[in-house]
Amino acid sequence: MTTIELTLGDIEKLAREVFTKNGCDKTNTAALVQTVVAAECDGAMSHGLFRVPGYIASLRSGKVRGDANPRVENTTPALIRVDGDNGFTPLSIKRGIPALTTAAKTVGIAAMTITNTHHFAALWPETEAIAAHDLIGLACVCYMPFMAPFGGNRPLFGTNPISFAWPRPGKNPMVIDMATAAMAQGEIQIAARDGHKVPLGTGLNASGDQTTDASDILKGMLLPFGGYKGSAIALMVELLAAGATGEQFSFEAVKTDNGDGGPPRGGEFFLAISPEMLAGSDWVTHCEEFFAKYESIDGARLPGQRRHNNRMSDAPRKINRQLVEQIESLCDS
Amino acid sequence: MTTIELTLGDIEKLAREVFTKNGCDKTNTAALVQTVVAAECDGAMSHGLFRVPGYIASLRSGKVRGDANPRVENTTPALIRVDGDNGFTPLSIKRGIPALTTAAKTVGIAAMTITNTHHFAALWPETEAIAAHDLIGLACVCYMPFMAPFGGNRPLFGTNPISFAWPRPGKNPMVIDMATAAMAQGEIQIAARDGHKVPLGTGLNASGDQTTDASDILKGMLLPFGGYKGSAIALMVELLAAGATGEQFSFEAVKTDNGDGGPPRGGEFFLAISPEMLAGSDWVTHCEEFFAKYESIDGARLPGQRRHNNRMSDAPRKINRQLVEQIESLCDS
Repeated sequence: MTTIELTLGDIEKLAREVFTKNGCDKTNTAALVQTVVAAECDGAMSHGLFRVPGYIASLRSGKVRGDANPRVENTTPALIRVDGDNGFTPLSIKRGIPALTTAAKTVGIAAMTITNTHHFAALWPETEAIAAHDLIGLACVCYMPFMAPFGGNRPLFGTNPISFAWPRPGKNPMVIDMATAAMAQGEIQIAARDGHKVPLGTGLNASGDQTTDASDILKGMLLPFGGYKGSAIALMVELLAAGATGEQFSFEAVKTDNGDGGPPRGGEFFLAISPEMLAGSDWVTHCEEFFAKYESIDGARLPGQRRHNNRMSDAPRKINRQLVEQIESLCDS
Repeated sequence: MTTIELTLGDIEKLAREVFTKNGCDKTNTAALVQTVVAAECDGAMSHGLFRVPGYIASLRSGKVRGDANPRVENTTPALIRVDGDNGFTPLSIKRGIPALTTAAKTVGIAAMTITNTHHFAALWPETEAIAAHDLIGLACVCYMPFMAPFGGNRPLFGTNPISFAWPRPGKNPMVIDMATAAMAQGEIQIAARDGHKVPLGTGLNASGDQTTDASDILKGMLLPFGGYKGSAIALMVELLAAGATGEQFSFEAVKTDNGDGGPPRGGEFFLAISPEMLAGSDWVTHCEEFFAKYESIDGARLPGQRRHNNRMSDAPRKINRQLVEQIESLCDS
């Protein structure tokens, strides 16, 4: 694999051009560009430019609207519903978060559902946006069947990521963002592309047998992380992302999707919680004592720190050359 | 290990006697007995009579009040705060759940914190009680440092259980209830008592080395399930149970505890969410289609089913003979 170096400015320009040239209006483009650049900035290459060909495929096939106009509605003082108008999720998130955080600051906790959208990115942008308001953030989505429940040998779940952000005023939040699969879909796609083997236990081939071949797993299925306990968390994510939003479960999404390689229609579930209103004004001091204790343990790292460290650098990012060429060609046609 | 058979009525009677004889008033006794009997009924032996000597130790040492009078307060339309008055948690839960579920039915979502209590039981009784109102339930607690974060070799977390219940009107709810440790503390105590080895990866000895000896792990520390991802879930539980409640983190609880063998003072965090208000009136049909799909996969079992199957039986339960004799002797002195 050969890479080329692009500055964050180059990445932004490339992303802006490809979305604009493929039918995205200004507001949708801005939200998508921000999502792609944030991923590359944080070194999460499986969620940055890597996703662009999929986004473009779905714009070109007409599955997803580049001019979607999401509508935000407070259905109760603690519930927010966003109808994504059949667009990609970033603009829905951008419009929904202010309503969600305002509600959580007012009554202490709020939930938000986004429906009628297509999610194809990491989840930390939204949970960090919630944590920026000194609120605890949680978000999850499902996808298409790509993972078997523990004990089973047929895919049912998406890779079902969950993100949880804990606010640390004056510092970067503590941010968990992980697939509940043994490996994230983007990571396994990259392993397959680059010909890398993956650890045993990552997934099964199409016949339901264990394999270390990433391509065979892409044709078969992933397994949940951590055996039956990880499978339980994947199930919780599936139920929140689809059952609690009223949007498609993964097994439904695969039936309605047109197979263009972009994200299927699906829902996203959010929570925002005020630690101040629950625990009182001492909460920051109390929690920072805990974080100090955590960080005093040799070898123990807080989730999200690698990304936050990457974010500090304005050095050019190494991007797969073929990918850049592919995106450039998508700007032309 | 020899066992004797006790009917659920025998278990209830024994539990009632031991709590009453050790200073519990009627309301606290009723809540505790219900918790112990529910655990034995469901075959969760590590959370039933097995816990009684610990409960009694804390009543006798004066750490926990047998006549606690928990107070429930709605601080906003979506937040409930319960002060447990330094008792065991079951009575606080019993008094708090109606306020929590009423709030969730009114505004769609509610959170509850219980502080100033001592939790020593499973979590499914509370999440099932929430699900009985057709609400999604979540609960979590921490404990005393007994588990190292992933990569570390010093204990920081409790075994940090989380429970999540999904309502299925007319059926038993889907209920997850699991330690985020590779093995629950009660299970490892029982393995140590019975001289059983545990799988490698369950925990470390006091020097921070891997071991399969349950007694050595009790002197050392457990590990999270599922590597760094399970560790992230354990961290989320610790933050919700202590950071969001304002109660003690595990590392604080061990400092204030008197070491009597009963549970330390700690908090409990709850969520209740209305799927109907979020997803609309079709939610039951929609989710039952998903559960049918899940159950159609060979080898895939929904969490909680074993317990619910056990619950159907009114046959006598096999209880460790020594344990029964110990509890009987605690009734006398």
